[in-house]
Amino acid sequence: MNVPAVELTEQTHRRGGGRLGRKALRSAPIASFPTLVRNIPVYEIVPDEAVELIHEESLKILEEVGCEFRDDGAIALWKAAGADVRETRVRIDRALLMELVSKVPSEFTLNARNPERTVRVGGKNSIFVPMYGAPYVRDLDNVRRYGTLADLNNFHKMAYMAPALHSSSSVICEPMEIAVPKRHLHIIHSALKHSDKPFMGIVTSKERAEDTMAMAAIVFGEAFVRDNPVLVAITNCNSPLVWDATMIDAMRVYASHNQPLILAPFALCGASTSASAVGAVAQVNAEALAGVALTQLIRPGSPQIYGQFMVTVDMKTGAPMGGTPEAAQMMYLMGALARKYRLPWRTSGFHVGSKLNDAQAGYESNMLMHAAILSGANYIWHSAGWLEAGLTCGYSKFATDCEQLVGWYKYAGGVSFDDFKEAMAAIREVGPQGHFLGTQHTLEHFESAFFMPSIMDFNSYEQWNAEGAKDHDTRGREKARNMLADYEEPKLDEGIAEGLRDLIARREEKLPDTVS
Amino acid sequence: MNVPAVELTEQTHRRGGGRLGRKALRSAPIASFPTLVRNIPVYEIVPDEAVELIHEESLKILEEVGCEFRDDGAIALWKAAGADVRETRVRIDRALLMELVSKVPSEFTLNARNPERTVRVGGKNSIFVPMYGAPYVRDLDNVRRYGTLADLNNFHKMAYMAPALHSSSSVICEPMEIAVPKRHLHIIHSALKHSDKPFMGIVTSKERAEDTMAMAAIVFGEAFVRDNPVLVAITNCNSPLVWDATMIDAMRVYASHNQPLILAPFALCGASTSASAVGAVAQVNAEALAGVALTQLIRPGSPQIYGQFMVTVDMKTGAPMGGTPEAAQMMYLMGALARKYRLPWRTSGFHVGSKLNDAQAGYESNMLMHAAILSGANYIWHSAGWLEAGLTCGYSKFATDCEQLVGWYKYAGGVSFDDFKEAMAAIREVGPQGHFLGTQHTLEHFESAFFMPSIMDFNSYEQWNAEGAKDHDTRGREKARNMLADYEEPKLDEGIAEGLRDLIARREEKLPDTVS
Repeated sequence: MNVPAVELTEQTHRRGGGRLGRKALRSAPIASFPTLVRNIPVYEIVPDEAVELIHEESLKILEEVGCEFRDDGAIALWKAAGADVRETRVRIDRALLMELVSKVPSEFTLNARNPERTVRVGGKNSIFVPMYGAPYVRDLDNVRRYGTLADLNNFHKMAYMAPALHSSSSVICEPMEIAVPKRHLHIIHSALKHSDKPFMGIVTSKERAEDTMAMAAIVFGEAFVRDNPVLVAITNCNSPLVWDATMIDAMRVYASHNQPLILAPFALCGASTSASAVGAVAQVNAEALAGVALTQLIRPGSPQIYGQFMVTVDMKTGAPMGGTPEAAQMMYLMGALARKYRLPWRTSGFHVGSKLNDAQAGYESNMLMHAAILSGANYIWHSAGWLEAGLTCGYSKFATDCEQLVGWYKYAGGVSFDDFKEAMAAIREVGPQGHFLGTQHTLEHFESAFFMPSIMDFNSYEQWNAEGAKDHDTRGREKARNMLADYEEPKLDEGIAEGLRDLIARREEKLPDTVS
Repeated sequence: MNVPAVELTEQTHRRGGGRLGRKALRSAPIASFPTLVRNIPVYEIVPDEAVELIHEESLKILEEVGCEFRDDGAIALWKAAGADVRETRVRIDRALLMELVSKVPSEFTLNARNPERTVRVGGKNSIFVPMYGAPYVRDLDNVRRYGTLADLNNFHKMAYMAPALHSSSSVICEPMEIAVPKRHLHIIHSALKHSDKPFMGIVTSKERAEDTMAMAAIVFGEAFVRDNPVLVAITNCNSPLVWDATMIDAMRVYASHNQPLILAPFALCGASTSASAVGAVAQVNAEALAGVALTQLIRPGSPQIYGQFMVTVDMKTGAPMGGTPEAAQMMYLMGALARKYRLPWRTSGFHVGSKLNDAQAGYESNMLMHAAILSGANYIWHSAGWLEAGLTCGYSKFATDCEQLVGWYKYAGGVSFDDFKEAMAAIREVGPQGHFLGTQHTLEHFESAFFMPSIMDFNSYEQWNAEGAKDHDTRGREKARNMLADYEEPKLDEGIAEGLRDLIARREEKLPDTVS
C-alpha cells in the first residue's frame, strides 16, 4: 500500500502556501490516511524456540507465583472459572489461561463518529495514536507549564489535522484548572467535539468510565455502543503481578460494553522487573495475559489489546529511560509473543525521556518507532507529543511527530514495484552521464516518489541561514501554529452537541469540586 | 555477543568522574570494542523473487546500456577480458560479470597498527567508521567555519577515544589552511599519529594514493602492505553509469596492493537515478557491480566492498535529503543484493541533512542506522559527525554519535538469554508488588544490563533545570571537550614517527602550493 498521492501532495503544498494557499485548501476536506495496512514483513529478532522459552516461563510464573487481583468481583470470577485462588492471589493453570486468551478476536473494527475515520486493529492493520496523560505542556512559546483545557483542545485539533494519526487519544494533556472529579467530562467532550477520529476512554474510576460510555452513547447511539467498539481504554498492571481494583473497575465497565482495553503492564525494567530484557518480557507477558484472561471472564469474545509499556531504568538514579536498544529488543519479543497468541497488540512509538524536542528526542523517538513498525505493533500509542517520560506534551514535538508519521506510514507501506518497468525504461532513455529530471517517468512520479517532510530542512546552509537559522524545535512550533490556524471543526450534529453539554451540566451538578 | 561489561562501565563512570575521576582512568587503556559480530538476523524487506527481479534488471542495464569507463587502462583490461567495448562504453555480459564478482572474498581482515584494533569486514562482521570529507566544522563553540588541521587532529583523537568506532577514517574534515596538493600528507599523518585504528586512503589522484601507500608502508612495513589490507579507500561511480579516470587511477593503486576499495555509486535518487526507489537500486547495483568487476581485472581475488550512497532528492529544490523512509528501504534492498553476491558491503549510518545536532538530526540518524544494522551492513560509514549532507562535521554530533554507537553495538549483539534462569529466580524471590532493586540478580547485573548513555539526560526536570537546562546539542559539545581532555596519544614508535615526518618533508618540497 502506498500513501495516497493526493494527500501527501496536499500536505506538501501546504508548506509554502501562505495564508492564501491555506484558505484555498480549507474548503478541501482534511486529509486523513486509512488504517495502515503493513505491507512489509515483521522482524523476528530471535528464533521461534526462544519465543517458546519465554512463553513457557510466563506460564510458570502464573502457575507457580500467581498474580494478585485486588477486587472481589474478579476473585469471584476466577473462583468460578476454577483457578487456584487464595485470598487475592490467583494461580492460573495454562489450559485455563490459554483457553481464555484464545477467545479474543485477532482483529476488530474501531468505529469513529465519522465512518471515514473508522479503522481496523490487529493482524496487518496498525494505527497511530497520540500520547496520553501529561500534566505539563511545552507550549507554543517553548515554556513548560501546567496543561489547560485550551491546550487539550489544541492537541485534539492537531490530532484531527494530522493525516497519519488515526485517533484523538483523550487526555493528551491534563486540563489542570478543572477539578479532578469533573475533569474527565471535559476531556472526553474535547476529544469528541474537536476531532472525528476514534478516541480513548477514562479509567480512573468506575463512575468516570460510565460517564465516558454515556457520552459515547450520545454520539454513537445507546444500542450501537453496547456491542461495537468506539473507544479504547488503558488498564495497567502494577508490575510485578498486581491488577488493582481501580483498573478492574474500568475493565468491567468497558469490557461489558464490548469496548477494547489495552492490557499493559507498566514496567520500569530493572526496578519493577529483573535487570534482564528477556526476564522482563517473561514477566510482562505473564501480567498482560492474566489481564487479557480476566476480560474474557467478564465478556467472552470481547476485543482486547495485549500490550506492554517497558522502559529501562537508569540504575544509578532510578530514572526511566526512553529509546534504548533494550526497549527495541523487548518490543520485538513482545510482538512475537502477540503473534503466537493471535492477539492485537499495543506498544509505544515516539516515546522519549528528553525534556526538549532536541537531538535526544529524535534519536530516542526513531529507535522505538522503527522497532514498533518492524515488530508489527497494531496500536502504536504515544506517537505524538511525548516528552520527559510522559510528564510533558510538547507542541513542537507533536507537530514533528505528525509529520514523521507520514514517513513511517509510507515506510510500512512497503517497496513499490508498480512503476519498475517505467523506471527501467527511463534508465535506457537517459544512459550514462545524463540526468533524470526531465524524463516522463520523473515528471509523473516526482510528487509521490519520495517522502517530503516540511519541518525538516534540507535547504542549502545559506538559504537556511537567510530564513533565520531556525533549529528543528523552532520550526516545529511554527508548524504547530500553522496547523491550529488551518483548523476547522468537524462539527457535531447540533442535537448531539447539546446532548453532550446537557450531560456534562447534569453530572457537574452532582460531582464535588475536590477529591474526597 | 554482549558489550564487554567492563568497557560500558568505564564509559558510564566517566560521566560523573570529574577531573579526579578522569585522571584515575587515564592510566587505564582506552576502551575499544572488537569487531561487531552481529548476533541478530538480517531484515529482508522483500521476498527473494523481488531481489532476483532487481538483479535481472541490473544485468540487463550492463548488457544493453553498458557503463562508461573513461580510462585507457581500464578499457584495455575490459577488451582483454572479452567485453563488448565501443570507445569508452563497455557492455558486460552476465557470465563475465558474475565470474569477476565471484572472485571477491566474502570476508577479509582489515589490519590496524595496533593489532588489538584489527577488525574483520564481511559476513556477520560489521564495523563503524566516522564521516569523511567535510569542508566545514561546527565547532566546540557552535560556530560553523572552515575545518583546520587542528580540527582534524581533534576528530582523529575522538575517533580513538570512542570505544565503538573501529576506524579513524581519514579526511573527517578538510584541513582547509593547507594547500590542496600537500593536504593529503597531513590528513594521513594525523590519522596514523593520533589513533591506532584502521584508516582510509586518499583517492583524489594517483600520486596521492601512492603517497598514502608509502606512508602506510612506513608504519606497517613495505612487504606487509603489498598483500595485507591496512586501509580502505572510496571510489564513487558518477551516476548514471560513469567510472571516471581519477577514480580508476586510485582503484589501480590500491587494488594492486590488495587494499580494499569501496565501490559506491553516489546517487541522488530522483536526479541521477529515476524517481523510483527500486529503479534507483537496480541502477546503483549495476554501477557498483561494474566497479567491483574492474577491480578483479586489476587484481583477481583482491578484497573489495560493494557499496551504495543513496539519498533522495527534494524534488522541489533539488536538495539531497538524509534519513528518509525510502533511504532505509533502499538499504534493505542493497543488503539483500550484497548477500546474494556474497560481497562485504558498505552503507552510511548517521547521515543527515540537518544543519544542527537537533531533533531533525536525531530522527534522520536513527532512521538510517536502524536500517544499516538490520540490513547487515559490514562497513557502516559516516557513523560519526555528519551534518548538512556531509558539508559539515559537528563536534557535538560526533560525540553524540560515538555514544549512540555503543547502544547500537549492544543492540546488534542480540538478546541475551545468559542470565534468564537467574532472572526468573528473581521473580519468584520478589513476587507480586515487590521490587527488584535489592535482588542478587539485580546487584550482579545492574551495571551491564541496560545501555546507559551519558549525553542523553534522563534526570528529573528539576535536576536537569538545576544543571542549566542544557539541550542535547550543548551536552554533546561538553562531552566532546571531555573526550579531548581525556585523550592520550597512542604513540608511534619514534623511528616510524620520524620516517613519516621525513616523507612528508620530502614530498612537500616537490609538490606545488597550488593546483595547476
